[in-house]
Amino acid sequence: MRFSRKPTGKQFFELFTAIGSNIGHSVEVLREFVRAPAEQRAELAARMRELEHAGDDATHAIIEHLDRSFVTPFDREDIYRLAVRLDDVVDHMDAAVDLATLYRVQELPDGVEALVGLLCQAAQLTAEAMPRLASPQNLTTYWVRVNELENDADQVYRRLLSALFNGSRDALEVLKLKDVVDELESAADAFEHVANVVHSIAVKES
Amino acid sequence: MRFSRKPTGKQFFELFTAIGSNIGHSVEVLREFVRAPAEQRAELAARMRELEHAGDDATHAIIEHLDRSFVTPFDREDIYRLAVRLDDVVDHMDAAVDLATLYRVQELPDGVEALVGLLCQAAQLTAEAMPRLASPQNLTTYWVRVNELENDADQVYRRLLSALFNGSRDALEVLKLKDVVDELESAADAFEHVANVVHSIAVKES
Amino acid sequence: MRFSRKPTGKQFFELFTAIGSNIGHSVEVLREFVRAPAEQRAELAARMRELEHAGDDATHAIIEHLDRSFVTPFDREDIYRLAVRLDDVVDHMDAAVDLATLYRVQELPDGVEALVGLLCQAAQLTAEAMPRLASPQNLTTYWVRVNELENDADQVYRRLLSALFNGSRDALEVLKLKDVVDELESAADAFEHVANVVHSIAVKES
Repeated sequence: MRFSRKPTGKQFFELFTAIGSNIGHSVEVLREFVRAPAEQRAELAARMRELEHAGDDATHAIIEHLDRSFVTPFDREDIYRLAVRLDDVVDHMDAAVDLATLYRVQELPDGVEALVGLLCQAAQLTAEAMPRLASPQNLTTYWVRVNELENDADQVYRRLLSALFNGSRDALEVLKLKDVVDELESAADAFEHVANVVHSIAVKES
Repeated sequence: MRFSRKPTGKQFFELFTAIGSNIGHSVEVLREFVRAPAEQRAELAARMRELEHAGDDATHAIIEHLDRSFVTPFDREDIYRLAVRLDDVVDHMDAAVDLATLYRVQELPDGVEALVGLLCQAAQLTAEAMPRLASPQNLTTYWVRVNELENDADQVYRRLLSALFNGSRDALEVLKLKDVVDELESAADAFEHVANVVHSIAVKES
Repeated sequence: MRFSRKPTGKQFFELFTAIGSNIGHSVEVLREFVRAPAEQRAELAARMRELEHAGDDATHAIIEHLDRSFVTPFDREDIYRLAVRLDDVVDHMDAAVDLATLYRVQELPDGVEALVGLLCQAAQLTAEAMPRLASPQNLTTYWVRVNELENDADQVYRRLLSALFNGSRDALEVLKLKDVVDELESAADAFEHVANVVHSIAVKES
């Protein structure tokens, strides 16, 4: 009996694929949330919370599978790190939605929809990359694009803040909106961190 | 003469245990600080600063020991990473105390004691885990609990902010208090990062 | 034909050296920026943006070289991590400059020049360390000094915030200035993260 040099790790890739889909659903709820009238937000926030819990469960499933697996498709600590980083993405989207609800924010500032649009693109790229993790070297386009999207998000974010600070809102309102928008920006960063982990796995394997 | 496959690393575990105790002392000073009348805070802040320096010294002792050690109980870079992450915990508690003092904050907002209570629990779990690092696989309860406490801290933190923003304080006062509370929330995150390092060591060794 | 045990990795060190120089140029532009009258800032911000793009290009050059290299002077993932961390330094300096420009900040608060002075020192130490990466064990002074500078930056930063919050500026102005200053503090942290990566490479190799 012999082990193949590279175990297929089929179940890991299936679990990561499921997490990718969950991120896709979460970003859709986020998009609905920022477009919805204020009175529909509580319900969307509750749906986001469910997706966040589903993400937690999937993360735990990967780590449990890791504990039981003798061979893994790439280094154990990289699988762990990737799972933790993916979990961060939905955490930040959930935080944005939760804070906007808790703070009873009325009108979200201009630029939020553009920022969420960039998150949708990053989510789609991430969801498409997950089933292809077995060949991380072929995912160059994925991480290059996610890094570009993060740069774009940075630009949109700073211009959004600039308009917010130089507008007519009072300081406390600005503070609240900034908190919400900071979480969206952190979600863009989190997508980049996921891409960086995938990239560093590819670098190791090359 | 032969080396055992897994060196006992007794001295590393003793140093990590000492850091765990130091975190325990720091969180006690933090608890006193948030309960104390404003005029007693400077003295408690000075004690916290001493504990922060003691933590720095212990971190350096671990890294020096690492430089002199031929065999280590787990990967050198994980020992390094664990030491750095533990150091972050007290840094954030010290920052909270220092900022509250520098900003001449009068009354801390409701919820701060609850947040510090969660930090006390995380500190105790961490202090208890350090002497048991030789068998990281047996520390499942530790990292699961610390992750749960971080989730709880997140919830308390957001509700605290919501009350703060929707209260009657003026914007500058809100900003100051938010800075202090952000450091407490970062301390909760730092405990989780420590637990994640321990978890990833266990994953590697499994 | 045989490979030497430790490949010289000459080209990697040249690329890291170039990044070190680029950081040196960026911090000079930052220093000019914080001393310049408001009407000269847009031009300096444009120069900083160019340096930030040059840094991006150098980071990509390292990663491409990594993809093509069979032997590397230290672990592939550490080269990757070091490149990413170095990139962060200029990103934060660029963000500070960009936000100060976008927010149309008039007068920067006292303490900003002192903070930038510390960044200049950290930049010089980093630029000097890069050509010496082949012997990371000899760089103790470098990382000890950068860690000390980060502690100093922390102290300057907190005292600056304290003066800012207790001064006569209105809340929105305080918020804008805090955003700018936070990026400078993050740049100091980023220098420390670079030093920590170098340190952890030395620890691994020892």
